[in-house]
Amino acid sequence: MNRPVITLLTDFGMSDHYVGAMKGVMLGICPEALLVDITHDIRPYGIGDAAFTLSQSWPYFPAGTVHLVVVDPGVGSSRRPILAEAGGHLFVAPDNGVLTLVRSAGQDFRAREISAARFYRRPLSRTFHGRDIFAPAAAHLAAGVPAGEFGGEIDYVVLLPDTRPVRKEPGVWTGAVLRIDRFGNIVTGFGQDGFPEIARTAFELRIGSAVVTRYRPDYASSDPAEIFLINGSSGYLEVSMNQRDAAGFLGIAPGARVELRLPTAQQSSGVPAQGPRTGTESES
Amino acid sequence: MNRPVITLLTDFGMSDHYVGAMKGVMLGICPEALLVDITHDIRPYGIGDAAFTLSQSWPYFPAGTVHLVVVDPGVGSSRRPILAEAGGHLFVAPDNGVLTLVRSAGQDFRAREISAARFYRRPLSRTFHGRDIFAPAAAHLAAGVPAGEFGGEIDYVVLLPDTRPVRKEPGVWTGAVLRIDRFGNIVTGFGQDGFPEIARTAFELRIGSAVVTRYRPDYASSDPAEIFLINGSSGYLEVSMNQRDAAGFLGIAPGARVELRLPTAQQSSGVPAQGPRTGTESES
Amino acid sequence: MNRPVITLLTDFGMSDHYVGAMKGVMLGICPEALLVDITHDIRPYGIGDAAFTLSQSWPYFPAGTVHLVVVDPGVGSSRRPILAEAGGHLFVAPDNGVLTLVRSAGQDFRAREISAARFYRRPLSRTFHGRDIFAPAAAHLAAGVPAGEFGGEIDYVVLLPDTRPVRKEPGVWTGAVLRIDRFGNIVTGFGQDGFPEIARTAFELRIGSAVVTRYRPDYASSDPAEIFLINGSSGYLEVSMNQRDAAGFLGIAPGARVELRLPTAQQSSGVPAQGPRTGTESES
Repeated sequence: MNRPVITLLTDFGMSDHYVGAMKGVMLGICPEALLVDITHDIRPYGIGDAAFTLSQSWPYFPAGTVHLVVVDPGVGSSRRPILAEAGGHLFVAPDNGVLTLVRSAGQDFRAREISAARFYRRPLSRTFHGRDIFAPAAAHLAAGVPAGEFGGEIDYVVLLPDTRPVRKEPGVWTGAVLRIDRFGNIVTGFGQDGFPEIARTAFELRIGSAVVTRYRPDYASSDPAEIFLINGSSGYLEVSMNQRDAAGFLGIAPGARVELRLPTAQQSSGVPAQGPRTGTESES
Repeated sequence: MNRPVITLLTDFGMSDHYVGAMKGVMLGICPEALLVDITHDIRPYGIGDAAFTLSQSWPYFPAGTVHLVVVDPGVGSSRRPILAEAGGHLFVAPDNGVLTLVRSAGQDFRAREISAARFYRRPLSRTFHGRDIFAPAAAHLAAGVPAGEFGGEIDYVVLLPDTRPVRKEPGVWTGAVLRIDRFGNIVTGFGQDGFPEIARTAFELRIGSAVVTRYRPDYASSDPAEIFLINGSSGYLEVSMNQRDAAGFLGIAPGARVELRLPTAQQSSGVPAQGPRTGTESES
Repeated sequence: MNRPVITLLTDFGMSDHYVGAMKGVMLGICPEALLVDITHDIRPYGIGDAAFTLSQSWPYFPAGTVHLVVVDPGVGSSRRPILAEAGGHLFVAPDNGVLTLVRSAGQDFRAREISAARFYRRPLSRTFHGRDIFAPAAAHLAAGVPAGEFGGEIDYVVLLPDTRPVRKEPGVWTGAVLRIDRFGNIVTGFGQDGFPEIARTAFELRIGSAVVTRYRPDYASSDPAEIFLINGSSGYLEVSMNQRDAAGFLGIAPGARVELRLPTAQQSSGVPAQGPRTGTESES
């Protein structure tokens, strides 16, 4: 019989005792649990960061894994603690949008409020529900308590605004930078599935003051100091340089605007059904 | 049968190989051990930081846990390696004060010198007793070696100076900042148990150039940009802002002086027996 | 029966999801594996850093441990993924030199190319072989797949240039700084085994603008603010100060030149067979 796995994703950092206290609480409830840190370096209160990082880690874990997400600027307020099920995985988190991309990834998303106070740790603090509500719930789940015992199903969970690219006019899409990784790779919101023609057509991708026109299948095939577009490992198009910090070089931060221009003949037939939505929203 | 748990608390950082080497040594001795990092980001030689962090993490672990603390500026000198028992937990550390708050928390504190050299790793370095003395001792303990085998009981362990608040005059207490956490919350040395009236009386708390006069039960009930006092999750009063870095805003660092003024009528009856000590020491 | 141990050593940092994704993949293949982080803070593309850190951690783990090293600037190029066996341990890494010090440490080094594509994760990205090739290989090894199933033996692996000290003239050796640790200790490339006389003879060690002439057996026996040479825990001579950042004080970075001068009579007989090589290479 496999040990139950609990992943941890927080904005607590690792300099304080907060993560250690949560782990102690969980091992007291479920001693056989295997605790796996995804990251604790989400920037403080970074709900969007957490949603992205969760979306890039949970699918790689075995079914049955409990994913504990504590990025919780609303701790102590009326925001609900929730428990969700999706794709055979379990998620414990505050209801503030951190599960947005879990919900949009699958068909079988179900959520409950964690309302059964018997699973709360006492005394219940008003500033550290990670230790007193979320960690205990994750550990009880890992120990085999059925999800239904924690509270009733809810129809609505908080979702973050949709950040997928929008078609502004034929052949012109605007989107945003989702993430800068440690190496300076710029992860754009342009999903590879939505733009499969990028590897074999002319394009212009405008980001900051740069215009990127080259696609490279891997880092090594680029020219020295070249800035290029590449299919990243996260499923999105990335702006990269080979062994250099593209984001630092270009001065790009998360949220920066990205504009992609494709040949219109190509574009008119090339976008698959599950691609990015079209729309006429004005740019922010 | 549960796996034995060993927690790790050091100032080694995670960039060097030091933590990895200790874990390898421990798994060689006790392969079934569950190793849990509390933090390795204690500032170099930060004995007081380590004592605080340990006090905030060990009580959340199951009884029987071995807590390995290696913040050891005196490595290679005559400072003793010690093994302590308190509250059903085990502690392995240099005798330099890191166990101060473990000792003050409970009644049943016992300490031994780790003098049985057969548990040392050979060759014994003079600069890395974490790997060669402390980690082996923790792992042998986790593997079931009785504490008594490591050495005889000792009557005296090094303790850090008492940092609890001191009453300067009726209604006026002075103390210090214990810790700034990742979010900029300022953890004061004023224990909540000693000042239960703070939530329902007028007060003035002076810190840096600020005078804090508001208590809030949770972050969300504060006004925008307000600086307030709150019962933190660590058992101390904290100076905080909602989703902002209070310490950065006020320019406060650990050790900063804090003065609390309470109405004298209230204060004369409000301090419980186990509250902060009174005293007439001059301020440092 | 002990759980199989997999250590992880990468330049991925812990802010992104990369390490978490690799751990998820490994637990899906080998749920009973014990995953131990050595560090993920190797500087980006720091092959030499990784080689040093690996050399200082793997020998402390139990035989049979699988060491997963992903510092892989050539990802997606023709550099080979390899699997090595040495000293009863297993190593999974790109063939770029990260195993240089594993190979030079023992007699029984054997390497194979990981060419059996059935062990790759699909779809195979071209930018994250840590997740798609290396982590699966490490996990299958930990789960008991024999090394021979991954591919045939290879005669040649990429090795980093030899950085051991070189004798320039009788009594004069030049070498380089291997590493600065978190405390500012300067780890030189001068192995203690090659210079056993250093503790009991006059010497001059030139580094930056400093000339170090004192040896100390431990930190505590030094004079205040003294800069001294000490036998470090890694097997190399280190330039240190007691509870101060020697590297910061002296302005020394990894790679800095170190010159050691010993009395020639002493030196002529004192270097053991396994000591540093002599040579006449010009300095770089």
